[in-house]
Formats: sequence, C-alpha cells, structure tokens
Amino acid sequence: MKISELSRETGVPVATLKFYLREGLLQPGKALSRTSADYGDEHVERVRLVRALTDVGGLSLATVGRVLAVIDEPGQGPVEVLRVASRSLYGEEYLDDSSARDEEPASPVASWLAGRGWLVTPQDPAVAALEKAWAACETAGLGLTEEHLDRYADASEHIAQIDVSTVPRDPSGAVRQVILGTVLIEPVLGALRRLAQQHVARTMRPPTSP
Amino acid sequence: MKISELSRETGVPVATLKFYLREGLLQPGKALSRTSADYGDEHVERVRLVRALTDVGGLSLATVGRVLAVIDEPGQGPVEVLRVASRSLYGEEYLDDSSARDEEPASPVASWLAGRGWLVTPQDPAVAALEKAWAACETAGLGLTEEHLDRYADASEHIAQIDVSTVPRDPSGAVRQVILGTVLIEPVLGALRRLAQQHVARTMRPPTSP
Repeated sequence: MKISELSRETGVPVATLKFYLREGLLQPGKALSRTSADYGDEHVERVRLVRALTDVGGLSLATVGRVLAVIDEPGQGPVEVLRVASRSLYGEEYLDDSSARDEEPASPVASWLAGRGWLVTPQDPAVAALEKAWAACETAGLGLTEEHLDRYADASEHIAQIDVSTVPRDPSGAVRQVILGTVLIEPVLGALRRLAQQHVARTMRPPTSP
Repeated sequence: MKISELSRETGVPVATLKFYLREGLLQPGKALSRTSADYGDEHVERVRLVRALTDVGGLSLATVGRVLAVIDEPGQGPVEVLRVASRSLYGEEYLDDSSARDEEPASPVASWLAGRGWLVTPQDPAVAALEKAWAACETAGLGLTEEHLDRYADASEHIAQIDVSTVPRDPSGAVRQVILGTVLIEPVLGALRRLAQQHVARTMRPPTSP
C-alpha cells in the first residue's frame, strides 16, 4: 500500500509517518520509484505499536526508539531481556544514580531487599527507582513501613508470576512480550487497583461518616 | 522564615516558589511588609509535597492543583474520596469518554466487571482507562485474556486491601492518605513489579537458552 493508505489504515497523519521514518521508528517501505514506496501489514502493525507505547504506555519517542531496538535485535536470555527492558524504560538519571552507588553504604532498600531474599541485580534501575519512590512516600508523610512494603511485595510477586508465565519460549517472542507487557500492562494494573480500591472500600466496613 | 530560607530548606529555587504562590499551589506566608512574608513548617511540607507529586508521581502542575484542592477541602466519605481522587488523577479525555458511554452497548470491560462482581461506579474514569489499556494490549498482540485479567485483578485486590487498611479514620487524614497513596505508591508498585519479575525469572525455571 502507499503511505496515504498506511495513514488511512492506522489513523496516523502522513506527516507523522514520515517523521517516524526519519527517526527510524518505522522501517522504510519497498521503494517503487524515487518518490513512492510500498508498505505492508508489518508497517501497519509497527505504527500501531508505536502509538500504543506512546498513547497508553506514556513513553517518549526516544524511549520508544530504545524499546524497538531491543525488540528488533533479540537473542538474549530472559534475565538479560528483563535487565535491558528495565534500562530502556527508566530514564538516564536512574542509570547515573546506580553506577555511582557502589561505594555508598547500604540503603534502606538494599537492606530490605537482602532481608526479602529477592535475586535482583543491585545496579538495576528499578532499585534506584524504588529508593526514590519510597523516599517520596516518607517526605509526604505516608508512613510506608517495611511491613507494608513486604505486603505490597507479596502482591507484586503474584503479578510477576503471571507476567513471567505468559512469556513465550522462543527468544524473539519473549523479548517482545516482556517489554510490551511491562509497558502496556502497567496502565491495566493502575486501573484495576483503583477499581479494586472502590470495591474494597464499599465492602470492607460500613461508612463511619454520617 | 523568609522565602530565601524556604528555598534553601526545600532545595526549590525562589522563582519556582513564587510561581507556586501565583498558581495557588502554595499558601501565602504571613505578610511582614509589602515585599516580604514569613513562612513556616507547613510551607516547607507543602513544597515537598508538590515536588513529590510532580517528580515521583509524574503529575502535571494542573493535576497537582486539583489534588491539593481535594486534600484541602475534605469532609467526604471514603467512597466519595476515591471517586474524586480518580477524577482528579485521570485526564479530561477519560471524563468525556465516560459521560458519553451511557447509550453505548456493554463493552468487554463492562461485562468482565459484571462477571467479577466488583462494586464500582460504571462512569468512573478508571473503567474507561481500563478499556483503553486493554485495547492497547490487544493492538500490540499481547493476548491479555479474561483469565489473565482475572488473575491480575486478584493481585490488585490484595494491593487495594493494603491501601484501604492503611487509611486513617479521621476524614481529613483519609483524603490525604487515599490521594497521596494512589499517586505515590504507584511508582513503588512499578519498581516492585520489575524486581519481582527478575526474581521470578531467575527462580522459576532454569534458562533454556545455551
């Protein structure tokens, strides 16, 4: 199909498609002449993927580029894929933080993780992200104790078991599933949490206010 | 303290503090003269709260304003607080969506919710958010079945039980806890999920790749 048809099929303006092509987010079509190219179903799928990652996943185009690069060049084991996904999805500030942390004393998160017995890479950006998020709860006076963190971690382990159990066995499918699942299921979980809160608040105890 | 001291105490530039004052995110200090005012601990706390909501919660200043308005004017029951929190935290697009949905046929999410038996308001923006997020998973070929959604919902119920059980009984504390908890614990849960994925991937089964 021509680029105008690709635009109709996906609902994305031609100018935006050309921008995706220039930025390398979309592979070039098969050249038909100096000014036109032929696009196929794989282009439709890729455009829809870029939109899903930006619109629902809330990723910047730069992050989408890093994510697509990992999806397009697979061949790594599941742990390595998760590590690359984590690095692609968190901003640079977390990477800088973690590389400097080797000489620092153990943080509250590091000792909590040690007590929990989770097998994770201490330099993973998610560790730094957890430190920042926990500190922000402290600042806001939310009183997120280690005991609460442990209960949230129990629930997170259940979620991770679902995540990992749905990953296909072929390496290229696995990369795709892990990265897209991490980005696109996050908003699903956010919405489920809010709905579950309503249900729990309505059923747990009668309202105490008049 | 003077505004320069408030700036030193919080690490936020004076120009930014003045912007917060103009936008109503920060209450005015006690006027000492026509050009200077006195700020107290409650101002330090409020500035730190605004930073936590923007930096860690990722909220826009407009959304922070709506959240602070709810925190500052409490007096509602827990279900109402959750509803207001949901409306403050999701963008306008979801509100428009949900108000128009009355005449539409039941969506897959609506029938899934009915089957699940969750007591939620059908017009809640989280319902529209779940629809959009589920559709994006479909578009990306993630294959999020109703069965998977149910398993994620089970884990979300555990999280919501922790959320609701930590809400204090006094109404103004409850509003604060619900809204801040929803915003600030989300990044905690995101980081926990990524770390739990690593742990589960490492312990669930030996790597099958060479």
